[in-house]
Amino acid sequence: MTDILRVAVIGAGRMGVDHIQRIHARIQGAEVAAVVDVDLARAQAAIEGIPGAVALADAEEALNNGDVNAVLIATPGFLHEEILLKALAKDLPILCEKPLTPDAASAWKIVEAEKELGHQRIQVGFMRRFDAEYAALGAMIRSNELGELLMLHHQHRNPTTPPGFTNEMLINDSVVHEFDAVRFFTGEEITSVQVRLGKATRNAPAGQHDPQHVLIETESGVLADVEIYVNARFGYEVATQASFEDGIVNIGADHGPYTRANGRWGGTVTPGFEERFAAAYDVEIQAWVNAALRNGIGGPSAWDGYATAACCEAGVEAQKNGQKVPVKLNPKPAIYN
Amino acid sequence: MTDILRVAVIGAGRMGVDHIQRIHARIQGAEVAAVVDVDLARAQAAIEGIPGAVALADAEEALNNGDVNAVLIATPGFLHEEILLKALAKDLPILCEKPLTPDAASAWKIVEAEKELGHQRIQVGFMRRFDAEYAALGAMIRSNELGELLMLHHQHRNPTTPPGFTNEMLINDSVVHEFDAVRFFTGEEITSVQVRLGKATRNAPAGQHDPQHVLIETESGVLADVEIYVNARFGYEVATQASFEDGIVNIGADHGPYTRANGRWGGTVTPGFEERFAAAYDVEIQAWVNAALRNGIGGPSAWDGYATAACCEAGVEAQKNGQKVPVKLNPKPAIYN
Amino acid sequence: MTDILRVAVIGAGRMGVDHIQRIHARIQGAEVAAVVDVDLARAQAAIEGIPGAVALADAEEALNNGDVNAVLIATPGFLHEEILLKALAKDLPILCEKPLTPDAASAWKIVEAEKELGHQRIQVGFMRRFDAEYAALGAMIRSNELGELLMLHHQHRNPTTPPGFTNEMLINDSVVHEFDAVRFFTGEEITSVQVRLGKATRNAPAGQHDPQHVLIETESGVLADVEIYVNARFGYEVATQASFEDGIVNIGADHGPYTRANGRWGGTVTPGFEERFAAAYDVEIQAWVNAALRNGIGGPSAWDGYATAACCEAGVEAQKNGQKVPVKLNPKPAIYN
Amino acid sequence: MTDILRVAVIGAGRMGVDHIQRIHARIQGAEVAAVVDVDLARAQAAIEGIPGAVALADAEEALNNGDVNAVLIATPGFLHEEILLKALAKDLPILCEKPLTPDAASAWKIVEAEKELGHQRIQVGFMRRFDAEYAALGAMIRSNELGELLMLHHQHRNPTTPPGFTNEMLINDSVVHEFDAVRFFTGEEITSVQVRLGKATRNAPAGQHDPQHVLIETESGVLADVEIYVNARFGYEVATQASFEDGIVNIGADHGPYTRANGRWGGTVTPGFEERFAAAYDVEIQAWVNAALRNGIGGPSAWDGYATAACCEAGVEAQKNGQKVPVKLNPKPAIYN
Repeated sequence: MTDILRVAVIGAGRMGVDHIQRIHARIQGAEVAAVVDVDLARAQAAIEGIPGAVALADAEEALNNGDVNAVLIATPGFLHEEILLKALAKDLPILCEKPLTPDAASAWKIVEAEKELGHQRIQVGFMRRFDAEYAALGAMIRSNELGELLMLHHQHRNPTTPPGFTNEMLINDSVVHEFDAVRFFTGEEITSVQVRLGKATRNAPAGQHDPQHVLIETESGVLADVEIYVNARFGYEVATQASFEDGIVNIGADHGPYTRANGRWGGTVTPGFEERFAAAYDVEIQAWVNAALRNGIGGPSAWDGYATAACCEAGVEAQKNGQKVPVKLNPKPAIYN
Repeated sequence: MTDILRVAVIGAGRMGVDHIQRIHARIQGAEVAAVVDVDLARAQAAIEGIPGAVALADAEEALNNGDVNAVLIATPGFLHEEILLKALAKDLPILCEKPLTPDAASAWKIVEAEKELGHQRIQVGFMRRFDAEYAALGAMIRSNELGELLMLHHQHRNPTTPPGFTNEMLINDSVVHEFDAVRFFTGEEITSVQVRLGKATRNAPAGQHDPQHVLIETESGVLADVEIYVNARFGYEVATQASFEDGIVNIGADHGPYTRANGRWGGTVTPGFEERFAAAYDVEIQAWVNAALRNGIGGPSAWDGYATAACCEAGVEAQKNGQKVPVKLNPKPAIYN
Repeated sequence: MTDILRVAVIGAGRMGVDHIQRIHARIQGAEVAAVVDVDLARAQAAIEGIPGAVALADAEEALNNGDVNAVLIATPGFLHEEILLKALAKDLPILCEKPLTPDAASAWKIVEAEKELGHQRIQVGFMRRFDAEYAALGAMIRSNELGELLMLHHQHRNPTTPPGFTNEMLINDSVVHEFDAVRFFTGEEITSVQVRLGKATRNAPAGQHDPQHVLIETESGVLADVEIYVNARFGYEVATQASFEDGIVNIGADHGPYTRANGRWGGTVTPGFEERFAAAYDVEIQAWVNAALRNGIGGPSAWDGYATAACCEAGVEAQKNGQKVPVKLNPKPAIYN
Repeated sequence: MTDILRVAVIGAGRMGVDHIQRIHARIQGAEVAAVVDVDLARAQAAIEGIPGAVALADAEEALNNGDVNAVLIATPGFLHEEILLKALAKDLPILCEKPLTPDAASAWKIVEAEKELGHQRIQVGFMRRFDAEYAALGAMIRSNELGELLMLHHQHRNPTTPPGFTNEMLINDSVVHEFDAVRFFTGEEITSVQVRLGKATRNAPAGQHDPQHVLIETESGVLADVEIYVNARFGYEVATQASFEDGIVNIGADHGPYTRANGRWGGTVTPGFEERFAAAYDVEIQAWVNAALRNGIGGPSAWDGYATAACCEAGVEAQKNGQKVPVKLNPKPAIYN
């Protein structure tokens, strides 16, 4: 294959622009070849200062551009399926922002298409796996140095939600990260999801029930839970406490300069996920580029995208009925082993 | 009343001896007048070096001793009912180690006896309320400075369990503290309890399922939970994270000298509850003494003992059926308002 | 001797009142028998609610009061000498707030008077030795578990200074605590003091040079230093970092509830020394009472008071000449070994 | 100029190899064109897997190689002068690992050569300026949000020293970083250096006096100090506490997963400077590349290299005489303003 990835970035919104700048300024072995957005002006703005990149309004045109040999999909989730299938048809390396697709049925179509292709081409953008602390905790779990992992407690807090954010999106867009994290940490599939709705904050827009408490179980019985609070005001926080047989491990603690002033000790809370996971995004994209240059993937697969989509479906159902809802998965195709 | 409390300590086991030393060496306004233990030698050993104290084998004898004007009960829980009723009959100030009694029905008898007496005489030994950080968190909740309290996440870990420790005791002796803490923090009654049993540690003796995840709801819908792990090996830990509308507060963090040595940064984990709550016990007993000298109580009441006993019953049932079990309480007598 | 200390508290200012309340409410084995203040109204206000205590305007009257069998001196330092000599003449147990006396010559007179008496009667109020973390660090040093102690870095910050506070007082009233701490930690005498004056804060009143950097050496060559800043505004802070051959240990870290709110993580700085060392004062006075009831002292001696006075004299000289000033001590009388 | 930096890395030792891998794997806009080492085998090993790079034994050959348009110098300091002058003569962008040269006189020759060239070409490898926390503290100082900076306390600890490490190297190779840090934080020149030698560790090889306490003053009177301990065993630590008029700020705190196990709370100390400053090196080299592509420098200048060399000379003299030694600098040439 080539020695440089010429990437078409599909979608020039917040995440797309972030990735464009990343690839342009910090990633080795890749260049931005094309930026696609239905709003062409947005695509044009995004390529400013990037020599050799073209702005397009149509994704298909980008895929047919001879200068493009890889695709990064950063459009809203409901648009992923069509582009994924087209890019797979061309056997291009794909980095697809999460979610793979918005539901398990469509995600399964992607898995089947990739299975037919006979090898993995799709990496899904669960960037937390590339965070240094996530990686360290994963390594500690696999090492068994503190015995078996028994419980996982997750805190996930966002300062605010964008207009139109719904209860379903709280599961599909936010808790989906913890579904992936639980699968990543345990190396197991999730078997059930339950959701507790209690006292709600006055900070949430009408229609949202916030916070929520999500209870998760895995194949071996690891009890995980997530305190998800998406209108927490004070800043962004993602933290995990893992309880082992012989000890506990916390990741996601606050850091940065430690100040004593005005009668307070402490520091500044990270304002959002971009700041919290800036380094993780860099590592993620570099891992994808390195792997794609060797015809592989360097992170979560389409199977991971499908399995988390199934968890999300169970989570949304559990939100509504208050019960423990089982997660049902099709058998895993061999290319994902 | 008198200007000094002459206390009969009933029970010269671990907690009894601890309280005897406390009253002797650190508490103002109280003295140890008598120590009672069915094992008289143990009572005699406990009064060594305490001038003016007598060792007895029979609690009734202590209550009838003219030199005694207050009672501290530190026997096993199943013996509390009889002594409580006798001490109430004499209208003595009583500090009763938790639990008030082992079940809701017998606890209710105590409540009724006190109700008949017409005023409160019994303080129950939930010492955590007297911990400086518990008190500070309680004050923050009542101040509403971070908005309404929404969730309470509790971690409760013991290094090991004594011989004969059962699943029921995990609820009745350990989680009972969190039942009281949730009631203390929210100022509300608990309405339901659910228990999740997942992957179990190899560290637990046969017959114990450890750890467990206890889910609690209160009248206003505050979602509380408890990660209880009683064979955690690494030390003792009690911590709470309170989530408010506008922020979160953690108490129970590790402290003490901070060391960098041998490739590690950090410090020493508190080995057990005596060390963790040493100051809280002092404050608790002093508060009781001060209140008793003014004919009142200075902490959790018999009602608190009864209500937590009802939570424990629900908790034990929930352990067995995996369901959300409602907590049912009799109406609260007026003397507790 | 008696089984209860009947204490005359000399001086009903801030520290005096604090000790009166402490002895009345929290200390076992001691009672307030008399309170002396030249402002009799102040003495009278201080004994309110303390049965059996008398208010007096004259210290000698208190010493002659048959009901008094111990003395706690909490007057300004320049008044200590006279009362100390009179109380020594009566062979009473004495707790003398620091400084013993304001200068080495007068302190030496006290040492000589006690030496003539033939046994120790004076305990000096360096309360930090009774702080749990100071004690823990002291124990780590003596254990040699991290090898030899090599350096001691001290931070000492006060929010503000009272009217009339001078550069000399910065040494005599503030750094004096670190002179004692260095002697306590190392178990050695201080051999020299140097003071660096650099850029000064706008927060200090005219005439004060603040902050200052004090360099200290001990007999074995331990290099200690103190960053003293007495108009630091943000709160009160006393912290020490000890560097050993094989590791470092910090004490004095911030603690208390940990909050995430308003874009900040952290907690509240202790506002002053009373809050920071509240528990240490209790332990100190209880240790004094316990020891006095057995005719001894339970903390820093008159020798410690004398040696720190000599350090202060060297410190004030060093402030003025910028040089390393040696500390000269008379030979230590045998009663202090 | 070109749109890609083709870098000759001079020196394939520890730092050289580190930079070669960095440029190859993580830096945008630069490639390794040549690696020079007197030990040709070492140069050949270093280019393995790097297409387009050549291995050479002679630096001059690299500079004359038409494919090379930039130089990164990672040889021992005493070899820098010759290569610097040759690379300057070719007007190439230069990243020179610290020290610029080993002494102020030779460093001044470099400054004069660059002055003659008429523009800056040399960036010196003080990587700490590129650490996120150093940068944050620098920004806080410049913002004046906590008032004027008054004091800077530095801790600098290395686990061990390589064979042949001397007292002079403790200043020239280790404390040199703090000389630069003090200049970076204050934006001022250092005016004097004093060194305190106290009790020494048994961990140091014969001939080394370790630890040492270095006292630094700046033009406006900021009092800085450095606790330098290069045989600290426990790991690597670089931390700074800045005292302002209205508060204090600490950087360099320990971080990473927080564990409770085996009776201890805490985490793992960073083992060495490569791990501690890995991200800073990446940012530093990327900043150099970006600036060099625009014909500038993106970090500390040759003047910074000269000024710190002068501080080191004063420091080594101060080590010997125990006095406060003034730092004397030639006037700063205009190209550095």
